[in-house]
Amino acid sequence: MSNQQNDFTKWYIDTIQKADLMDYTPVRGCIAFKPDGYEIWEHIQDEMNRRFKETGHRNAYFPMLIPESFFEKEKDHIEGFSPELPWVTEAAGEKLEERLALRPTSETMIGHLYSDWIKSYRDLPVLINQWANVFRWEKKTLPFIRTSEFLWQEGHTAHVDEEEARHETMQMLEIYKEVVEELLAIPVYDGQKTPSERFAGAVDTFSIEAMMKDGKAVQAGTSHYLGTKFAEAFDIKYLTKENKHQFVHTTSWGTSTRLIGSVIMVHGDEQGLVLPPRVAPTQVVLIPVGPWKKNPAIMEKLDEIYAELKSKGIRVRLDDSDQSPGFKFNEYELKGVPVRLELGPRDLDNNQALMKARDGGEKVAVDLTEAVASIEQELQTMQKRLLENARTFRDENSHTNIDTLDELKKHIEDSATNEVTPGWILAGWCGDDACEEHVKDETKFTTRNIPFNPPAEKSACINCGNESKHTVWFARAY
Amino acid sequence: MSNQQNDFTKWYIDTIQKADLMDYTPVRGCIAFKPDGYEIWEHIQDEMNRRFKETGHRNAYFPMLIPESFFEKEKDHIEGFSPELPWVTEAAGEKLEERLALRPTSETMIGHLYSDWIKSYRDLPVLINQWANVFRWEKKTLPFIRTSEFLWQEGHTAHVDEEEARHETMQMLEIYKEVVEELLAIPVYDGQKTPSERFAGAVDTFSIEAMMKDGKAVQAGTSHYLGTKFAEAFDIKYLTKENKHQFVHTTSWGTSTRLIGSVIMVHGDEQGLVLPPRVAPTQVVLIPVGPWKKNPAIMEKLDEIYAELKSKGIRVRLDDSDQSPGFKFNEYELKGVPVRLELGPRDLDNNQALMKARDGGEKVAVDLTEAVASIEQELQTMQKRLLENARTFRDENSHTNIDTLDELKKHIEDSATNEVTPGWILAGWCGDDACEEHVKDETKFTTRNIPFNPPAEKSACINCGNESKHTVWFARAY
Ligand SMILES: [Zn+2]
Ligand SMILES: [Zn+2]
Repeated sequence: MSNQQNDFTKWYIDTIQKADLMDYTPVRGCIAFKPDGYEIWEHIQDEMNRRFKETGHRNAYFPMLIPESFFEKEKDHIEGFSPELPWVTEAAGEKLEERLALRPTSETMIGHLYSDWIKSYRDLPVLINQWANVFRWEKKTLPFIRTSEFLWQEGHTAHVDEEEARHETMQMLEIYKEVVEELLAIPVYDGQKTPSERFAGAVDTFSIEAMMKDGKAVQAGTSHYLGTKFAEAFDIKYLTKENKHQFVHTTSWGTSTRLIGSVIMVHGDEQGLVLPPRVAPTQVVLIPVGPWKKNPAIMEKLDEIYAELKSKGIRVRLDDSDQSPGFKFNEYELKGVPVRLELGPRDLDNNQALMKARDGGEKVAVDLTEAVASIEQELQTMQKRLLENARTFRDENSHTNIDTLDELKKHIEDSATNEVTPGWILAGWCGDDACEEHVKDETKFTTRNIPFNPPAEKSACINCGNESKHTVWFARAY
Repeated sequence: MSNQQNDFTKWYIDTIQKADLMDYTPVRGCIAFKPDGYEIWEHIQDEMNRRFKETGHRNAYFPMLIPESFFEKEKDHIEGFSPELPWVTEAAGEKLEERLALRPTSETMIGHLYSDWIKSYRDLPVLINQWANVFRWEKKTLPFIRTSEFLWQEGHTAHVDEEEARHETMQMLEIYKEVVEELLAIPVYDGQKTPSERFAGAVDTFSIEAMMKDGKAVQAGTSHYLGTKFAEAFDIKYLTKENKHQFVHTTSWGTSTRLIGSVIMVHGDEQGLVLPPRVAPTQVVLIPVGPWKKNPAIMEKLDEIYAELKSKGIRVRLDDSDQSPGFKFNEYELKGVPVRLELGPRDLDNNQALMKARDGGEKVAVDLTEAVASIEQELQTMQKRLLENARTFRDENSHTNIDTLDELKKHIEDSATNEVTPGWILAGWCGDDACEEHVKDETKFTTRNIPFNPPAEKSACINCGNESKHTVWFARAY
């Protein structure tokens, strides 16, 4: 059994450290995002920003410190978040009169401000997003996936009515789905969270859920319809065209640096990272091989290819260091560089180079005059291939034929015996919190979401056997 | 006397609020950056990132919370910053064993990590930048210019020796100068800070200094050569080619959201903001005038111009709301939109439109077939014009003929009598801290920097009359 199968968490932590994506720090649960890790985030930011702006959203920035009294205004919200809050109690040598929380999310601060910014229907909709650091002092942490401080974007919008707000909630979920599938090559199921898994203070929470290579789920993004809950808590009212005062309907939606962790856990292999070309800090590495130092034509040709790739906006690196080719191959495989091109004297004589994609397969000889085109082509096909492979893996590990809790337990046991992941299971649910909780207590499988497009419909509750109201994904989750 | 001259601070605060750049919040000294304010920052970020990456730097992200013990490792650093630190003392319901500071800057956390990341000369240079929120709990705050929480970038680099580190320090200062002059149209003097104005823990601090319209100075960016101070405090050593252990030489450099405040204070006028085209959220506004609703050809033409500007990447807005043209003119002037184009029925008959630049001058008739080209041209000339006008204003208010403290006092009195700013003065300084401090105590004029290219050389110390070691800018500063 490979390291990855044997102890997935250990493989994950080893890999992201060796590949120089992050480092631990002495502050509990807080990591340093090293350049290769942070750059994945920058590519995610660029694509998200493009989509947010295209749909009329603008960025803003709100204070990180939130007065304790703000949290108390929405009771579900404070109940959900208070166990995880760090507090500033002193500043500039003095004890503060009121404790200030490090934001876990910004609905309260933004609610307070929106109540001032929004007066009339003319001010609506308000479509604002924020890129920020947030804090949740969690007991168990895992780099990128669950850290005390993390980076995210949080959208906060206000609308005239429920219909418009719900449309926004769905629109943003759809954008998340597209970005995660197209940019990160991670297939997701979009759907609705069950009430027990809702965001603290939401009327409805929707999510996209992704399967990691160990079969566990990651909630890769959420979008919430908040109804008038925060509007009532913070008195966000507007004057309608008919001159009536009405509460706005708000939404919020977020994705975070856990996407960095997800992309590693979905695509990585024994040799290290496998990065989708669109988010790879280095997309192509050019490596001279054989007695290349005696043969200046090799570096000349590689310089030429380098310049051409660069001019096309491709993130390319030419490694002419003194390390051996084998050492370099290993290093760039570890770092997940999508495409490698080798050029040695014999290749040059044959007017060819050897190209290899990170996700397996053989080295291919490419015509030197078409090297750049071949690389461009490979980057595109690899991007699609990674998504398709991840989809195949996910579908193979998604089980739709498990109808009862006993069957689920047996499935989990069998999986353990066979040393394979139990994956996800699609099951019926009667809508009763107690059934959901019982499954969780017995199996650690929690409801991921009620998918909009389930691969099958399940008619009976997995726990009580009564008629199911929903067909739900159950899985162990990060 | 205008509002701007009468009470500059009031004018500033009124203007940025009316123009919707920011809002106050209930957390002391913490503001909300509204979309039009934040977008100026985004344009600054884009340009800085471009320049940083071009010069080999990469972004990363470090924890915001810094253990108290880290600060104590560099004594100048803790002395300088401890009076302004907010502290997290509790988290998740428990008192922390060690207080955690909200970072005022990240030398200590980064020093701690670099000591682990840097082992050999092969690991050098380390060229990293971070975009982050930072905290300095100041007594007196002013939106954008001095806030308890602000946004900034902080570069942190490590080098084999002093020469390379000093070269980096100067390179980054030069980049700041270019960005601030070319993007923000703010002329600056680059130079060296006096020891009393140095960054806490630096060997040498260099700055760019800008003059606001009230004659006061803003330190618009700083670049520090830190020598081996932080390397010694955090044990950042590397193995040389000769197999010796040596301390690295480090630098740090930063610019912040005070640049947003500066651009308002340098270019704004009685009518509101005046934004340099390159950072204006809206660069061009198109406004139909006259009985345009009865004449669909007007909106057709404006739609056409809008589409063409948009396709060229120009940030354009077409305002076809029901407000009167006069109302719209005022609103976009208040918001500092660089160029306005009006089109009414009579203009259309004459195949022309009226164009007006925000920074004054008359409306100009432009040929409709060349409207887009005229607008593009005007955006470029306005960008240059703003810089030149700011330079003229600065030079007119920079005084090089004041030789003694008495002359300075008289100059300040005369300026008050004439209701003009005393501006900056270029004076000699013997190098004695006491002389600098005496000038400050008597006049509130502090040393801004020792300019690399002073407009004159001053031979005697302004305070003691002894031979001057340096020619220095003195000014009141934000
Ligand atoms: Zn049930
Ligand atoms: Zn003196």
